[in-house]
Amino acid sequence: MLSEACHDVAHLGHVEVLTDKFDESLDFFTRVLGLKLAGRDSTSAYLRAWDDYEFHTLKLSAHHTTGVGHIGYRVSSPEALERRIAAIEASGFKSLGWVEGDMGHGRAYRVEDPFGHVFELYWDTVKYRPPASDAPALKNNASRFHATGASPRRLDHLNLLAEDVTEFRRFMETCLASRVTELIRLDNGRIGGCWFTVNNKTYDLACAEEHGRGRGRLHHVTYATDQREDILRAADIFLENGVHIEQGPHKHAIQGTFFLYVWEPAGNRIELANAGARLILQPDWEPVIWTETDRKKGQAWGLKLVETFHTHATPPVKP
Amino acid sequence: MLSEACHDVAHLGHVEVLTDKFDESLDFFTRVLGLKLAGRDSTSAYLRAWDDYEFHTLKLSAHHTTGVGHIGYRVSSPEALERRIAAIEASGFKSLGWVEGDMGHGRAYRVEDPFGHVFELYWDTVKYRPPASDAPALKNNASRFHATGASPRRLDHLNLLAEDVTEFRRFMETCLASRVTELIRLDNGRIGGCWFTVNNKTYDLACAEEHGRGRGRLHHVTYATDQREDILRAADIFLENGVHIEQGPHKHAIQGTFFLYVWEPAGNRIELANAGARLILQPDWEPVIWTETDRKKGQAWGLKLVETFHTHATPPVKP
Amino acid sequence: MLSEACHDVAHLGHVEVLTDKFDESLDFFTRVLGLKLAGRDSTSAYLRAWDDYEFHTLKLSAHHTTGVGHIGYRVSSPEALERRIAAIEASGFKSLGWVEGDMGHGRAYRVEDPFGHVFELYWDTVKYRPPASDAPALKNNASRFHATGASPRRLDHLNLLAEDVTEFRRFMETCLASRVTELIRLDNGRIGGCWFTVNNKTYDLACAEEHGRGRGRLHHVTYATDQREDILRAADIFLENGVHIEQGPHKHAIQGTFFLYVWEPAGNRIELANAGARLILQPDWEPVIWTETDRKKGQAWGLKLVETFHTHATPPVKP
Amino acid sequence: MLSEACHDVAHLGHVEVLTDKFDESLDFFTRVLGLKLAGRDSTSAYLRAWDDYEFHTLKLSAHHTTGVGHIGYRVSSPEALERRIAAIEASGFKSLGWVEGDMGHGRAYRVEDPFGHVFELYWDTVKYRPPASDAPALKNNASRFHATGASPRRLDHLNLLAEDVTEFRRFMETCLASRVTELIRLDNGRIGGCWFTVNNKTYDLACAEEHGRGRGRLHHVTYATDQREDILRAADIFLENGVHIEQGPHKHAIQGTFFLYVWEPAGNRIELANAGARLILQPDWEPVIWTETDRKKGQAWGLKLVETFHTHATPPVKP
Repeated sequence: MLSEACHDVAHLGHVEVLTDKFDESLDFFTRVLGLKLAGRDSTSAYLRAWDDYEFHTLKLSAHHTTGVGHIGYRVSSPEALERRIAAIEASGFKSLGWVEGDMGHGRAYRVEDPFGHVFELYWDTVKYRPPASDAPALKNNASRFHATGASPRRLDHLNLLAEDVTEFRRFMETCLASRVTELIRLDNGRIGGCWFTVNNKTYDLACAEEHGRGRGRLHHVTYATDQREDILRAADIFLENGVHIEQGPHKHAIQGTFFLYVWEPAGNRIELANAGARLILQPDWEPVIWTETDRKKGQAWGLKLVETFHTHATPPVKP
Repeated sequence: MLSEACHDVAHLGHVEVLTDKFDESLDFFTRVLGLKLAGRDSTSAYLRAWDDYEFHTLKLSAHHTTGVGHIGYRVSSPEALERRIAAIEASGFKSLGWVEGDMGHGRAYRVEDPFGHVFELYWDTVKYRPPASDAPALKNNASRFHATGASPRRLDHLNLLAEDVTEFRRFMETCLASRVTELIRLDNGRIGGCWFTVNNKTYDLACAEEHGRGRGRLHHVTYATDQREDILRAADIFLENGVHIEQGPHKHAIQGTFFLYVWEPAGNRIELANAGARLILQPDWEPVIWTETDRKKGQAWGLKLVETFHTHATPPVKP
Repeated sequence: MLSEACHDVAHLGHVEVLTDKFDESLDFFTRVLGLKLAGRDSTSAYLRAWDDYEFHTLKLSAHHTTGVGHIGYRVSSPEALERRIAAIEASGFKSLGWVEGDMGHGRAYRVEDPFGHVFELYWDTVKYRPPASDAPALKNNASRFHATGASPRRLDHLNLLAEDVTEFRRFMETCLASRVTELIRLDNGRIGGCWFTVNNKTYDLACAEEHGRGRGRLHHVTYATDQREDILRAADIFLENGVHIEQGPHKHAIQGTFFLYVWEPAGNRIELANAGARLILQPDWEPVIWTETDRKKGQAWGLKLVETFHTHATPPVKP
Repeated sequence: MLSEACHDVAHLGHVEVLTDKFDESLDFFTRVLGLKLAGRDSTSAYLRAWDDYEFHTLKLSAHHTTGVGHIGYRVSSPEALERRIAAIEASGFKSLGWVEGDMGHGRAYRVEDPFGHVFELYWDTVKYRPPASDAPALKNNASRFHATGASPRRLDHLNLLAEDVTEFRRFMETCLASRVTELIRLDNGRIGGCWFTVNNKTYDLACAEEHGRGRGRLHHVTYATDQREDILRAADIFLENGVHIEQGPHKHAIQGTFFLYVWEPAGNRIELANAGARLILQPDWEPVIWTETDRKKGQAWGLKLVETFHTHATPPVKP
């Protein structure tokens, strides 16, 4: 049953992606994927999809390697933030304390999961107020639909690797009051993958078992399109722009998401996804459990995932 | 700012639709719209979309006239239900007390809005457990995608008429802890229409000003499709089945919903809708306010609503 | 039955559109509609959709007014051109003789219909050979899918006005060996509209009755998209760019075409259309005849065409 | 350059598919794929898509094995048929002479290719005249859009295997006046695959090299849908009905077709395809030539075809 705590966190706010090919990555995210540049500082570019309401949902940072910098979730209220901090501090997980906010939000409270991913929770944010040149024709959109590149509507989710998904799950439930919507139960009893949500989305974060001896690694970051056709069209855009299409479009069995995976120039995996009208509205939802036998059927329409989907993550790990 | 109370109610559960042409209506809802028949009793048929998780989301009841019988919302927990009852009893709105549940759920607490619509809140429900013949290929779906008629995925929202939308808004906020996502502000200062949600959906209930001296009337009930293409395809299905297509497909300016309105055989207006990836994730969302000047632009792509959209509701009112 | 002559003409090649707002029109056609600029001379810009194989399919010419300059059809062979010239010269219709070709093709033979529209037939053409920067990822495309604006795939058809559609039909059958696929038979016995094709497309030219005392007028020019979703997406692009959306998206009853009509800045009506998989493969196709009674049902899903659809054409006629 | 002869043949008319599981196959083709049953005789069922204008486009015949029975093309006129017969008789290919027509057409002239496939050409046909119960809402459709199963619009093409594709090409050009739109040129100089059309479709027949020592084998038969979304939706229908989905949906590099391959219960491969707005209108089209290097890139978006696509054909060949 749904505890009230599960509403303390409102939604995934932003993901910091690291790149060792900053200019190429920025070109990909703006011109090809179609995010908008909200601002820049000395090491980062702040990007948002056209209907993201905050200043940014992707912070692209120049770095000596690739992967994920930190992950921000916005809470539901200042009081909720206090409750989450209390829970984190009582949890034994590694609190990192307050940090000044990025360009796009106020101060944030950070906590690190046991596998090296840094999360932050924040209430104070910078809502995007478009100038006239970026004002939408329909006032219920956050900004103008600019129809550049794939132009997804909004940030959707991210996928992280952890050596012990069960422990990662405990982290997400304890610190973010997240709930599990679906999971993979391996024959050895371990959780092979787990999908989490803090709201009615089917998931805003997924975690898969790390097999490559990496630490704090990113599997992918995903933006949502309005229609599946937007993804088919995006596939042609990626093709024409020489982007490595790893796999798709196809439909996942788990969560039923229509997907397309590409690698941005520095190697971070980026997904476009469409969930149709599927939401988790049921307050007493019980996680859907997929077995290894189930998984052998492949994706929804039988596709087998390519090998790199199981081996490639960022940063790459030296052998 | 989001109060915690706003999560007491989980989602719109079901709508009872009255018909004076029961057999024709049932044929429409099952064969043409593509809902599944969950059960029947002496006066009603219980229907659900293929991915609705409860026993039913539409109760179709034989009656001497048309319109809406009652509206059910499922709460988030037994405790939330107690909080809602306390709020209702303190509100001065017309409590109707407990009723035994329908075939599809347990006991429910009823309250009537000042305009004659009966709402019920309930926790105990009957979750649909498909027999083998209706088992889905993918275990995260509630039942088999049967691809019959329009076959929408799930119940989406309903639209009611009230002579005083501001007062109706007070009812929804007080009794259902609903929040307003968008509204029409008339030049005379009144609210001409108001869109409500209890969760991250853009709306689960809308209310428009009653101009026809009716009481407790229904404007429409809506089911959600996964894609806009499903609605274009449904338009051909309605056409081939002689269903009165009132208007659409087109895109609403308000909420950006892609829509199609038809009248089922007894005259109740039924909508198919697709919201794309649009959700209200922002905890401090401020209602979008549309003026009469805004409304003069028509729908998103300029369509003017047909006259009947403003005049037809069920039951019809005798002149 | 199909006569061999009907294959003398291969396809609609290009349309010359006149504008008295050249810069604004050119911006519309390139940035918003998403045609590519092939070349320019002192008074015209030559434009093509990304999969048009010829140098241009739209010649946009600065002029003191709007409307259509001339219409080019490419023939099937040099011999077919000779046969057509013989037929034209024997026909009594107004031969204008040879002209030097435009930037995009060789010499062309011109003939004028009785209502002032100038047609030309040509064999020698300039096939587009993309430079590396415009080379397609897939070698069976004429150029790179650039995903700019609406970016339709190819020229589709045009629609002209004539005071006597029956006589216009005689012109098309005699001079272009065109065949009729559908027509509107008015209660007064006249043909109210007529759809023609020279190949397996459902139509490449339509003609409607002129009611405004204009001469040689254009109703609209149309480009084809691969999917209906491309048109829904284009509607948002037009909306965001302040383009006047006259009507749609909707589906025509006649020909079943999914359509969207806008006015480019100078007032010429431009359509995006999608015919699905519908083709006229049947060699002994008999024209589908629509009566006024049929037409009263509106478009496929009941939409009534807006008044301007019946009154607006280019150039406008002074009262 | 286009010779006039290339228009002698109007279009692919029908394909006879053999099945050793007649009842299961018929259930698949009618209920799941969504063809309509036009008629039956002692050994065959005659089927058509809802917008096919002839009595049937698929003849399903009970047989001791699977594969293709014969392939029918309709000619453009009685005179064209005479020209084709003359060409066939002069060609040295194996003329089989006249046969009485099937239930769905009049007499037909047969010729066998060197690899064992039987073709027939016919002019006299039975056009489908729907009874009131099957009358379309729009009079330009051949019958009612019944929205059953995948419900494609029309027959599209078939794919055959031949040990010498160059010789098969000579057969198609000589006997059917077909033209080549695309082909695969192997490094050894042979043609690995070849796509043919008799009209403006991108192809109505394809041929791939036979590697399995079979004779007269079928690779697949294809029906066309109006939209790509229809194919995504069909994938779910196949999934829910236990149909073996071999591969897709994805987009072919060659021809750019969006595709989905399944095996009907007896093992014949069936495809759903959508070509978007792509047509071959160009009279002097030069075949697009794909090399082995090109083919190593996989399909349009990088998918590698599954092994069975290269090995499975019907009838299967005994080892």
